[in-house]
Amino acid sequence: MQFKKISVIVSKTDPAGINIAGHLIKKFNFKETEKSFDLNSVYSFSNEKNSFDLVFINQKQVFADYLNELETDLIVFASKHSSETKKPCLSVHSIGNFSKAELGGKDKTLVKTSSLVLKNFYLNLVKKVKEKKFDFPVLMEQTHHGPFLSKPCVYIEIGSSEEQWQNQSAGKILAETIMNSFSNFNSGFKTAIGIGGTHYCPEFSKIEERTELALSHILSKYYVDEIDLNLFRQMIEKTFEPVSLVLIDWKGLIAEQRNKIISFCEELNLDWKKTRDFL
Amino acid sequence: MQFKKISVIVSKTDPAGINIAGHLIKKFNFKETEKSFDLNSVYSFSNEKNSFDLVFINQKQVFADYLNELETDLIVFASKHSSETKKPCLSVHSIGNFSKAELGGKDKTLVKTSSLVLKNFYLNLVKKVKEKKFDFPVLMEQTHHGPFLSKPCVYIEIGSSEEQWQNQSAGKILAETIMNSFSNFNSGFKTAIGIGGTHYCPEFSKIEERTELALSHILSKYYVDEIDLNLFRQMIEKTFEPVSLVLIDWKGLIAEQRNKIISFCEELNLDWKKTRDFL
Amino acid sequence: MQFKKISVIVSKTDPAGINIAGHLIKKFNFKETEKSFDLNSVYSFSNEKNSFDLVFINQKQVFADYLNELETDLIVFASKHSSETKKPCLSVHSIGNFSKAELGGKDKTLVKTSSLVLKNFYLNLVKKVKEKKFDFPVLMEQTHHGPFLSKPCVYIEIGSSEEQWQNQSAGKILAETIMNSFSNFNSGFKTAIGIGGTHYCPEFSKIEERTELALSHILSKYYVDEIDLNLFRQMIEKTFEPVSLVLIDWKGLIAEQRNKIISFCEELNLDWKKTRDFL
Repeated sequence: MQFKKISVIVSKTDPAGINIAGHLIKKFNFKETEKSFDLNSVYSFSNEKNSFDLVFINQKQVFADYLNELETDLIVFASKHSSETKKPCLSVHSIGNFSKAELGGKDKTLVKTSSLVLKNFYLNLVKKVKEKKFDFPVLMEQTHHGPFLSKPCVYIEIGSSEEQWQNQSAGKILAETIMNSFSNFNSGFKTAIGIGGTHYCPEFSKIEERTELALSHILSKYYVDEIDLNLFRQMIEKTFEPVSLVLIDWKGLIAEQRNKIISFCEELNLDWKKTRDFL
Repeated sequence: MQFKKISVIVSKTDPAGINIAGHLIKKFNFKETEKSFDLNSVYSFSNEKNSFDLVFINQKQVFADYLNELETDLIVFASKHSSETKKPCLSVHSIGNFSKAELGGKDKTLVKTSSLVLKNFYLNLVKKVKEKKFDFPVLMEQTHHGPFLSKPCVYIEIGSSEEQWQNQSAGKILAETIMNSFSNFNSGFKTAIGIGGTHYCPEFSKIEERTELALSHILSKYYVDEIDLNLFRQMIEKTFEPVSLVLIDWKGLIAEQRNKIISFCEELNLDWKKTRDFL
Repeated sequence: MQFKKISVIVSKTDPAGINIAGHLIKKFNFKETEKSFDLNSVYSFSNEKNSFDLVFINQKQVFADYLNELETDLIVFASKHSSETKKPCLSVHSIGNFSKAELGGKDKTLVKTSSLVLKNFYLNLVKKVKEKKFDFPVLMEQTHHGPFLSKPCVYIEIGSSEEQWQNQSAGKILAETIMNSFSNFNSGFKTAIGIGGTHYCPEFSKIEERTELALSHILSKYYVDEIDLNLFRQMIEKTFEPVSLVLIDWKGLIAEQRNKIISFCEELNLDWKKTRDFL
């Protein structure tokens, strides 16, 4: 377990973040400290394995490149997820842009992620949702949006409209997921990147839930045509853990796209498999 | 006077609520306490009759079902009112949903209200608006939206766009209305529920202003067709005071709707009258 | 230098304002005080020349007429600037309404401004943008929007979308501009009002950048037809410094509009010149 100092970021503009923060403070005994960031008090909690800072910012997370000032090993964004369908969900994803940076971050630049943190978050979410008979599906999303930061970053979210953002059970599940993931961190997974399918990538959610693979950056079919070898290489290099596999959602790509990805794998001497080989 | 402990709820996302809260603190000497709720300090004020908590929440009020944690006798939501017309108004209403819960609360479920609190608020608003020659009309609205809570709840609002939400005279009038209503609480009214007319129900506003009736839940013509006896019964049972009359806006219903309501009254052995019998 | 006590106003709803405030506190050592306004702590800083209050308000600035309660010599609004183009910019302007008050303030009523503060802000912005090779253009805007206040007011803004509002370099430049403008205040300019051109008035930006004239209220061509002599006179009288010139963007008006303005100048016995006489 390599992440000792963890910063959980909550925007004061974000009802879901505030919801999650409230449960961290109530249930996990985060205490207000003398430290401040962005004019707000930092809350902290430590145990023998980790020290956690709960950092409130005044602005939206996706443009908050100034979080680079934080001294930390890992940044966890506790966030709302918005979608026009307004369907309830709990989701996790890596950040960065495969194309133009339209919501923070830099053009064609990924941010470091951790497949093991995503995996532990995902499995804890699934477990808690089942235990509590809570009817929000758990989803992986492809890598998207900002901010651009140098430390490894992951997003964990409540979606996808105001009513769910304020749902106290959802807030509690996310707070427990964050804390339990680190107190019982499971490192026994092989790391893969994922290519193909849609933004919500159901194939990769199944991989995360059912297999011994831990997914890092995920690239949907919508951006396969425009990425080059450099961006493909970033998916590997911007993963904290060594990547041992490229996982392809075969039916989620057309032939030409598959060939492009396979040629990239050959060029970088990487193993690849189909998701269906594991499901 | 049955409400001893009163909680006034203000969302930090709501300019009208913040406006009203500012006047409660400045004029009525609410003091910051050691208590906190939703990470915010609770402000309090007590006199020989009542104790008031001013509770700031971080999120929108309509989904804040977690307010059930408050120990209180009555919840007063100090709020903005939004409408596309952007016309100035001061309004009061009960909460709950006659149909699907599209803005918080539960489907086809009302929340307990107090006709006497609504009546005292309404009359104080009318009085202060006249005294100060303030040109905002005072309105009743039908029962609508969330949150879903077990304690009696009433809304008091400034409408209906940003410019009015920040109007300091309006904020002061609402703060004074809340406080004066309880310090000179008038219980000498008969409680009625109201049926018919539009969302803003001008007939029932006239009843509230000019008669000895105090209105509780109000159901506009738009939902009469879809309610059943159970929901009609909730209008009675979710009123803190005993309901002695069903008041019908005769011209605000078609014949079939009138017959439906009258049959409900007969089924529950309730007196009914036309609003015009009192105006 | 006539402004001793300066209040910098930041709305907690405004990411650009929060950004600028953060840099005032970090770099210029503003300290939290016992004073509060709108339920927020006031931050202060003093030197031998000036005393500054950094005042946080909960609501949007444009309707905040209650800022009249502040005891101060000058009000500086540190603000975001919004435009649909989302183009980056740093801008300064005076406030008031030449027509109907659609965004705060009063109909056909200007608010006192200071041409010398605008000039010092503008020149410092230009200087810092050059020094730091920062690629945001610096712009003057015509007089527009509220609030309506009795003390002299100026706006200084970061535009024109969320990404720029949070830009830390922009926030720092504005904080430095505000503070350096007063510590090295240059009063050696002649004051003019500006008439003609568009809302962003590039001619007047050039005047501000390149000449010894300091612009006060600016009226774009869009409102020339509807103003009367009274409103024209307000442009003079609502300027803190004596106005010695009316500056006309000749190509930014049609003949009839030029004649109208020239007749006003004659009526009030004011000198007028074309912007091109100085550029």
